[in-house]
Amino acid sequence: MELHMKIAQIQTNVYKDKKKNLENLEAYLRKIAPERPDLAAVGEMFSCPYATENFPVYAEKEGGETWTSLSELAAKYQIYLSAGSVPEVDDQGKVYNTAYVFDRQGRQIAKHRKMHLFDIAIQGGQYFRESDTLTAGNQVTVLKTEFGMIGLCICFDFRFPELARLMVDQGAKVILVPAAFNMTTGPRHWELMHQSRALDNQCFVVSTSPARDANADYVAWGHSLIVSPWGDVIAEMDEREGYIITEIDLNEVDTVRGQLPLLQARRKDIYDLHCIE
Amino acid sequence: MELHMKIAQIQTNVYKDKKKNLENLEAYLRKIAPERPDLAAVGEMFSCPYATENFPVYAEKEGGETWTSLSELAAKYQIYLSAGSVPEVDDQGKVYNTAYVFDRQGRQIAKHRKMHLFDIAIQGGQYFRESDTLTAGNQVTVLKTEFGMIGLCICFDFRFPELARLMVDQGAKVILVPAAFNMTTGPRHWELMHQSRALDNQCFVVSTSPARDANADYVAWGHSLIVSPWGDVIAEMDEREGYIITEIDLNEVDTVRGQLPLLQARRKDIYDLHCIE
Repeated sequence: MELHMKIAQIQTNVYKDKKKNLENLEAYLRKIAPERPDLAAVGEMFSCPYATENFPVYAEKEGGETWTSLSELAAKYQIYLSAGSVPEVDDQGKVYNTAYVFDRQGRQIAKHRKMHLFDIAIQGGQYFRESDTLTAGNQVTVLKTEFGMIGLCICFDFRFPELARLMVDQGAKVILVPAAFNMTTGPRHWELMHQSRALDNQCFVVSTSPARDANADYVAWGHSLIVSPWGDVIAEMDEREGYIITEIDLNEVDTVRGQLPLLQARRKDIYDLHCIE
Repeated sequence: MELHMKIAQIQTNVYKDKKKNLENLEAYLRKIAPERPDLAAVGEMFSCPYATENFPVYAEKEGGETWTSLSELAAKYQIYLSAGSVPEVDDQGKVYNTAYVFDRQGRQIAKHRKMHLFDIAIQGGQYFRESDTLTAGNQVTVLKTEFGMIGLCICFDFRFPELARLMVDQGAKVILVPAAFNMTTGPRHWELMHQSRALDNQCFVVSTSPARDANADYVAWGHSLIVSPWGDVIAEMDEREGYIITEIDLNEVDTVRGQLPLLQARRKDIYDLHCIE
C-alpha cells in the first residue's frame, strides 16, 4: 500500500462555456504535471454555473462528451482525477449532481450522485433549492486505490455525520468532497464542518470548491482545504482561482486512531448505524 | 412551553474533600440566586479529583450522602440542578461516572451513566484509562422540563455523533454535557466538537467543566461554554473558577431547523441509526 499521496486541488473559475471549463482544467493539469501529483480534484459543478435552471441544460449522460474529455485527461496525465461534479442525465431524463472519479488509465472507478439535495432558505441569506431540478442519488460511495479506500460525496452530503461514518466503515481513510459553500454558510460552517467530520472519523478530508465569482447567481466561498485526521486544517486556499498541492501521509490515520480510539470506542451494542439494503 | 431559559454554569475547583466541593457549590448557588437562573450546571466529577483510583473511593450509591445534598440544594434554590457527574457505585460494587439532574423540587428527573469510557494514550500528550476502574452505562438519556426535552451525556460520550443524534431524535433541543477536556484535547478539540455537534443537530449545547488546577493529576481545560443551534459559541469561560449566566431562546432551534432543514433532509430511506433494544 502506498502511504504518501500527493493531492492537487484545482480551484477553477466556472465559465458558461462548458468547453472552456475543460480547457481550463487541462491547462492546470499541464501546469502541475512536473510536480507529479497522484490525484487532482476540482470543485462541485466546475463545468456548469451553479443554478438550478442550468443543470438540465448542461447535463450529459455518463459516457458523454464531458465524461470522455475527463477520462482522456486522467489517462493523458496518468493521474487520478476526482472530476468535481457535473450535471448528469439518465435515460429517463432525470438529472443528478454527479461526481466521477477516473484512474490513471482514464477508467471510471467511482461515480457518486449527490444523495442529500441542497434546499436552504435562510432569512436575509442564501436561498437555493436543488430539488427543483435535481434527483437525489441513493448510494454511499467509496473507491479502491493503491492508497487504500477513499470515500466520495458532494458538498451538502457532508453535512450528515451518518454518511461520513458509513464511508469510513467501508474503509475510507480519505474522503473527497467536491463542494461549493456560499457566502452565508462559508464563513460560518466551512472549516467547522470539514474539521469535525475529519476529527470524528479520524480520516483526511479533501474538499475542493470552485473559485469565487462575485457576479455569479450563486457566489461560492472557495477556500478549498485539506483537514488531517486530528482535525487540523493542513492546507487551505483563499477565494481566488488557483491550485495547491499537498502531500498527505496516510500513516497518520492509523496513528490517530490508535491514540484516541474513537471508531473502536463506539457503543455498537447500544446503537446501530447501517445502510438499508 | 417556556422558551427562554436562564442557565448558570458553575466552573468549580475540585477539592479532595468531598464536603468542601458541595459547600463550594452551595456558595455559588446562593450567590447567583438573585439572578434567578432556571438551571445550574457543574462539571464532570466536580466532587472527586479526576483520577481512576479516586472513583471507587469517592463513589456513593444513588440516594447517598452527596446525592441527598444535591437534591436538597435543587429544592432549596428551586432550580434545575445538572449536578455535573459524580462517581456512583451500584449494588454489585460496579462504579460509574454518573450525571444526575434534579428538578426544582429536588426530585431526580434524570440519571446518565457515561456510556463511552475515556481511554486515551496520546504520544507526548494525555494518557488516561477510565475503564481501569469504571463500568460504562448503557442508556441514551433525555429529560422532560417545561423548556422541552433536554439531552444529557458526559464528556467523551459527546465525541460520538451517533449519541447526539439519538438524543435529538428523542426531542432534545438542548444537550447538557458535564465534561473535562485536558490540555492536549482542550485547545484542539473542545470548541470544535461542541460547535459541530450543535450545528449538525441544530440544538443548544451547554458544556460545563471544572476549573483548571495545574497541580492536579488530570489538568482540566476549563472553558465551559454554550453553543447555539447555528454552531456559534455564545458564551465561554476561561480556565478559572467562576460562573456565567446565559439566557437562551429556544425559538432559535426551530428557526435554524426551518432555514437549513438538516434533520429533515437526512436520507432515512438509505441509512438507519437507532438504539438497539
